[in-house]
Amino acid sequence: MHLSKRLGAEVFGTFWLVLGGCGSAVLAAAFPQLGIGFAGVALAFGLTVLTMAYAIGHVSGCHLNPAVSIGLATAGRFPVRDLVPYIVAQVIGATLGAWVIYLIATGNPSFDFTSSGFAANGFGEHSPGHFSMVAALVCEVAMTFFFLFVILGATDDRAPKGFAPLAIGLCLTLIHLISIPVTNTSVNPARSSSQAFFVGGWALDQLWMFWIAPIVGAILAGLLYPALTRQK
Amino acid sequence: MHLSKRLGAEVFGTFWLVLGGCGSAVLAAAFPQLGIGFAGVALAFGLTVLTMAYAIGHVSGCHLNPAVSIGLATAGRFPVRDLVPYIVAQVIGATLGAWVIYLIATGNPSFDFTSSGFAANGFGEHSPGHFSMVAALVCEVAMTFFFLFVILGATDDRAPKGFAPLAIGLCLTLIHLISIPVTNTSVNPARSSSQAFFVGGWALDQLWMFWIAPIVGAILAGLLYPALTRQK
Amino acid sequence: MHLSKRLGAEVFGTFWLVLGGCGSAVLAAAFPQLGIGFAGVALAFGLTVLTMAYAIGHVSGCHLNPAVSIGLATAGRFPVRDLVPYIVAQVIGATLGAWVIYLIATGNPSFDFTSSGFAANGFGEHSPGHFSMVAALVCEVAMTFFFLFVILGATDDRAPKGFAPLAIGLCLTLIHLISIPVTNTSVNPARSSSQAFFVGGWALDQLWMFWIAPIVGAILAGLLYPALTRQK
Amino acid sequence: MHLSKRLGAEVFGTFWLVLGGCGSAVLAAAFPQLGIGFAGVALAFGLTVLTMAYAIGHVSGCHLNPAVSIGLATAGRFPVRDLVPYIVAQVIGATLGAWVIYLIATGNPSFDFTSSGFAANGFGEHSPGHFSMVAALVCEVAMTFFFLFVILGATDDRAPKGFAPLAIGLCLTLIHLISIPVTNTSVNPARSSSQAFFVGGWALDQLWMFWIAPIVGAILAGLLYPALTRQK
Repeated sequence: MHLSKRLGAEVFGTFWLVLGGCGSAVLAAAFPQLGIGFAGVALAFGLTVLTMAYAIGHVSGCHLNPAVSIGLATAGRFPVRDLVPYIVAQVIGATLGAWVIYLIATGNPSFDFTSSGFAANGFGEHSPGHFSMVAALVCEVAMTFFFLFVILGATDDRAPKGFAPLAIGLCLTLIHLISIPVTNTSVNPARSSSQAFFVGGWALDQLWMFWIAPIVGAILAGLLYPALTRQK
Repeated sequence: MHLSKRLGAEVFGTFWLVLGGCGSAVLAAAFPQLGIGFAGVALAFGLTVLTMAYAIGHVSGCHLNPAVSIGLATAGRFPVRDLVPYIVAQVIGATLGAWVIYLIATGNPSFDFTSSGFAANGFGEHSPGHFSMVAALVCEVAMTFFFLFVILGATDDRAPKGFAPLAIGLCLTLIHLISIPVTNTSVNPARSSSQAFFVGGWALDQLWMFWIAPIVGAILAGLLYPALTRQK
Repeated sequence: MHLSKRLGAEVFGTFWLVLGGCGSAVLAAAFPQLGIGFAGVALAFGLTVLTMAYAIGHVSGCHLNPAVSIGLATAGRFPVRDLVPYIVAQVIGATLGAWVIYLIATGNPSFDFTSSGFAANGFGEHSPGHFSMVAALVCEVAMTFFFLFVILGATDDRAPKGFAPLAIGLCLTLIHLISIPVTNTSVNPARSSSQAFFVGGWALDQLWMFWIAPIVGAILAGLLYPALTRQK
Repeated sequence: MHLSKRLGAEVFGTFWLVLGGCGSAVLAAAFPQLGIGFAGVALAFGLTVLTMAYAIGHVSGCHLNPAVSIGLATAGRFPVRDLVPYIVAQVIGATLGAWVIYLIATGNPSFDFTSSGFAANGFGEHSPGHFSMVAALVCEVAMTFFFLFVILGATDDRAPKGFAPLAIGLCLTLIHLISIPVTNTSVNPARSSSQAFFVGGWALDQLWMFWIAPIVGAILAGLLYPALTRQK
């Protein structure tokens, strides 16, 4: 399909990822008594990918994440020349999602933007559980490595057809079940950037990690999965 | 299949959507210690659609929602002449569901109808988290837009076969994970109407929004999805 | 396949339904701080059916429930002459499951059998939320009606292939999300009987309802679904 | 595929099983207010298997568990000569997973390794709910028996194609929903060993049970399932 339509799909898909994942965290996680907690947020993030992958997988591949595009390119599954436009589209879509969350959240007179954290990613004193920079780095690299490992495996020609969106979406849920306490879970530089744009300050200062660590993990998986599974 | 059978399927399907979704909210969400919370209600709403879409998708298309029928008609996937009968069937089914919840709930001597809210949708002081009218409007338009976007994508001929009920049902779960605190989540004028009929007063006064916002969101998606994905 | 093998599959399947569903309720629902609550029990019940339907659906049809066998027979999908052996096998399997729960639970010195209720079904003062007999009756009839409606629809020749175990298992999860507070959720006379055998007293006194209501709901669906969807 | 590639897949798969399952337990289960609880951990364990089975099922069969390899070999579905290399690979992978959890967790200054238990399996005073040795033994044998029963059934030639990873992963979720309070849930000697290596002391003393009970359960299912379902 024409690049402009694929980019349009990436914009709307990443819009939904941030609106759904970060939106559930900001609006519903800590509601008194009935809130959805980290498990509900984990489910929400995974379902944004699951639903969009069924909806636009046939249009753009439904990456919604610069680390995914880079990992797929590393494995030779995505053209390098499309990387920059895809990443730009993903950051734009994520930022639109964050803007709609902002519109909704600030419509609540008791919403406190600063204390909410607006679902930005962080480490050290900005980690939900106060995990160190090194712990956060190890965690983000490992989580993104396995995310790409599952993506590459589930979309392999030898895997069952039609199930990849289910496996990939639920893998993102699993990643959040493990690592929200560590970094609020990124594995996605677009999702980290959109929230940091609104939060500013510390979130922008720490944003470098949420580009570097996911990309390193994705490249490692993009190198390893094909080597591990190539038939001869 | 003959229209009368398709309408019968819509009545029973929407009956189940309200009995399951609103029923879990009224009966089980706030049970002391062991209640299912907003996350459980979100799962219940999604599963009503998932289960019915596998059960009656081949009969009526399983819309269960006036906004879905209108969005599909906008995209040219559903005949405009069937819109009114479908919507009437959906409101009848929803009202039967609300009536059965009423029968069960009032069989509990400690059930307090008024303070329960009976899962009606609202904004301002009737929003669970006291979100403003504008926030509620933005939220309902955005949620229904993405709901229809996923429906149109997952039922596209190019999407994997058989998975659409899963993607669509879990999309409704995701929508509830995000937005129950804002409006109790409608995205479905039939579901809002049935609860407002029983609650009366403020719920009827605010019912206009839960017809207008979902329909606007659905029409936008019905225009945008085909434009975005048309191959030429 | 030979009846003896089909009955063996029903014994093991219903064993798993009770061990998993009632077992999670007895052992894990109310664990301090970390317990799985009603939502976890709802998921467990559904997953017993989902997992067994993929494992033995091709052997016995995986009914695991007298109401299911009777509803399918009503709709002409199951031979009436096999009803009694299937129901006997289901009750035997359920009782084995309850016995293993009993063995495990009583290995905990602080387990209090009487106050736990052992996941038996009840109404009035034995309803978790103290719902009346009439409310319980309405609820069990309605839940079993829709359970069979979904089973008949999802296993219809026109429904997508391979997804029925998913739809049916998650339908049982949904039913529990709604109705645990009302009756502890039966919709399955075998599951009610096994727990009543161990609890005795009030649970045996109220057991009649958990045979009659599910069977009535199942017969109604077995009559209605074919009429609603028959093509001519 | 060549044995070395299959073993590589087992190493990475079991790495993910422990990092995801035990990692979510150590890092996220008991987070104040928002923690994922036993239900979230149950979901995480199941999703490690679901995601890896779609990713590497076509490479190694995705056992990730010595009891699974032994149960499949008992049923004649896996060559006995590959048992030892598979089991060694699984224990290595599990230990790598535990090591990464250790790296992350100790990056939190308030993490208390000893009081956390590090998700090791235990009975008696080391059972989360203080269940006796006999209760733990019965529970682990029964859970692993049904786990293998579902694995053998869902991968049977007569079962629907492509759904086995879903059924098997969600079966592991179900097993955890039932039995975390009893033993912290093993059903997997590799997962028990990796955590015991780090915890030492009591965890190593009790490790024998988490090899013997799962293997006994798996062998019983490996004998029974084929006998029950053989067509003649």
